[in-house]
Amino acid sequence: MPIITLLTDFGSKDYFVGAMKGAILSINPGANIVDITHEIPPQDIRSAAFNLLATYRDFPVDTIHVAVVDPGVGSDRKPILIECANQFFVGPDNGIFSWVLEREKSFRAIHLTNDKFFRESSRTFHGRDIFAPVAAALSTGIPPQEFGVEIRELIELEPLKPLKIDQATTEARIVHIDHFGNCITNLTRFDLGPNGFDGAKLIANGYEISSLREFFADSGARPDELFCVLGSAGFLEIAAQDSSAATILGAQRGQPVVLVRSS
Amino acid sequence: MPIITLLTDFGSKDYFVGAMKGAILSINPGANIVDITHEIPPQDIRSAAFNLLATYRDFPVDTIHVAVVDPGVGSDRKPILIECANQFFVGPDNGIFSWVLEREKSFRAIHLTNDKFFRESSRTFHGRDIFAPVAAALSTGIPPQEFGVEIRELIELEPLKPLKIDQATTEARIVHIDHFGNCITNLTRFDLGPNGFDGAKLIANGYEISSLREFFADSGARPDELFCVLGSAGFLEIAAQDSSAATILGAQRGQPVVLVRSS
Amino acid sequence: MPIITLLTDFGSKDYFVGAMKGAILSINPGANIVDITHEIPPQDIRSAAFNLLATYRDFPVDTIHVAVVDPGVGSDRKPILIECANQFFVGPDNGIFSWVLEREKSFRAIHLTNDKFFRESSRTFHGRDIFAPVAAALSTGIPPQEFGVEIRELIELEPLKPLKIDQATTEARIVHIDHFGNCITNLTRFDLGPNGFDGAKLIANGYEISSLREFFADSGARPDELFCVLGSAGFLEIAAQDSSAATILGAQRGQPVVLVRSS
Repeated sequence: MPIITLLTDFGSKDYFVGAMKGAILSINPGANIVDITHEIPPQDIRSAAFNLLATYRDFPVDTIHVAVVDPGVGSDRKPILIECANQFFVGPDNGIFSWVLEREKSFRAIHLTNDKFFRESSRTFHGRDIFAPVAAALSTGIPPQEFGVEIRELIELEPLKPLKIDQATTEARIVHIDHFGNCITNLTRFDLGPNGFDGAKLIANGYEISSLREFFADSGARPDELFCVLGSAGFLEIAAQDSSAATILGAQRGQPVVLVRSS
Repeated sequence: MPIITLLTDFGSKDYFVGAMKGAILSINPGANIVDITHEIPPQDIRSAAFNLLATYRDFPVDTIHVAVVDPGVGSDRKPILIECANQFFVGPDNGIFSWVLEREKSFRAIHLTNDKFFRESSRTFHGRDIFAPVAAALSTGIPPQEFGVEIRELIELEPLKPLKIDQATTEARIVHIDHFGNCITNLTRFDLGPNGFDGAKLIANGYEISSLREFFADSGARPDELFCVLGSAGFLEIAAQDSSAATILGAQRGQPVVLVRSS
Repeated sequence: MPIITLLTDFGSKDYFVGAMKGAILSINPGANIVDITHEIPPQDIRSAAFNLLATYRDFPVDTIHVAVVDPGVGSDRKPILIECANQFFVGPDNGIFSWVLEREKSFRAIHLTNDKFFRESSRTFHGRDIFAPVAAALSTGIPPQEFGVEIRELIELEPLKPLKIDQATTEARIVHIDHFGNCITNLTRFDLGPNGFDGAKLIANGYEISSLREFFADSGARPDELFCVLGSAGFLEIAAQDSSAATILGAQRGQPVVLVRSS
């Protein structure tokens, strides 16, 4: 069964997600539809981009990821299909896939122009009327080039990669705050250098965080102590044991943090 | 794989939805269970009726829709099965299906009386003990008439259709407020007449809304400007760009709005 | 299709649940993944234990239940696999399964030590890296003993069974408060004795509840009257018609209630 994942900001209290699933199953009754999340904050493209980045590699080859956070629905923003990392990505051309592409480098993009694969189109719900039907048709084996014309230029978000200021200093940011209040930064182990976190500190909102723990329940941590963890998505996270690091820090998604390495 | 959709007010923090799915899969392991939503406000039959209406046509022929918002569970309200629009609907006879039937007109209804298809019955959880098992058995190919006796009279909500007062004026209401704060009315394009929205206005809570836009990101809209959209469920919606029309309006589901057409 | 259920405290706004599903489908594309809930309060093992207890029997033989509420992830708490009641349970050894085992008595437990079934391990997300892959491999038919070594001693929560103080008095507690505000106790029909609820009362936060109704919409109930129901999970619940018993009572999960039977 071909896998189609869904990631949207539609919430779960309306018929929207059900409508997308109905549209898919009407075209390919054998599709295996998997929800990633529908609780992306409304119109927050960066949150969608991060969550997709954090999990697409968990899925097998040929998975089709449909990501719809789409404030420009109905305008002239392009609907697109991307082939990348032996998977497919379907959604609006608004940067939602750009962090996946920043990592993967090699890709092919199609502007979805062949409306024989669209439903009679609303201009307010392309999730149901364009992206779901295209994903469903793709999952039946129709080749990507049938859906439109290849394009080279895509809308890009600001790069995910943090900015190395000098040998000691990297300007980074909090790219996601999770359900437990962990603050995920855009720093990876490669930004830490050969000494790892030894002698380094992460500065955020006036706090200096200088310990790296291997897991949340590490018995060395004091209550409310902020520490870093190399988290499950491959990024450095700010965490606290049994409490929310985001609350302690007063953190906001998108805000800057600074990594200072030992010299 | 036969499709069984679920639409309830059970929320997602308890075992309730899992229990329904277990009950279905215990009878038909091949059922493809699709969640529409479980976040209908507790006991809000109208919200369930609207969301079902807005999406049942997205699903293929023979889909079985199980809808359970059921304040009368355990009382003498009837459990029913309806065959309509080449699909099936299973749930309590409390009006939850009445707006689908108002649209479709032709249907057959069965009062579920054959308890050999029920689980040993609780009187508080018919979702698990009656509606899920009946839907699962139906999905295995058992004919509708096996489940009980045909009935003619069903409980009906007030009609969905708005009330035309005179040539210029239609009394309507807000039937749903979605996750983005869009206020969906019970007005359709047929209520607008031959001139569409030209010269018309929608009056709600003292606001007069006289522009109809084709999509949310229409560049002509000012911040916080209220405008109308012919939305994805086929109804006229009150929307605002990048903000919640419901908040601006102070809207409540069920409240009146008035459409005034040009003469 | 083998059934794998998921029950976690991961919430639904992050990539976590999607990541677990991707990990499962990468190993067994034919798995039928069923969400029980992901809205267990963060790190609340008892809430997870109750919800699992309330629904595992609804699922067919050979179902694999993956339950991950895991404050000790990465520490030396054991990852385990339990065979019990012709089903399987996979998760951390922290008591999450102990109420199922208290009911079932007979079981076999395996300490998951064979890391060839694990993903390259993070120490913060065993849901994706250990429990999902083990469940997926198990669902392909690999026998339980392949995953590790049998163990006898498991971590146990305090017993679910209430404490009978004397012939008339049983000390019990509220083990769950559901979406509707019903307060589920750990009392069953067996705690009521031969007279059932006749002449009995349940004392909670200064309220004496002495009526047992068969269902929520029982017409005898006054607004805001608290009454008992023998609920769908087999436990005595405190309920109120059309309102939240938990709000009326000011109830907290875990708090004591006392059952006094007539002598």
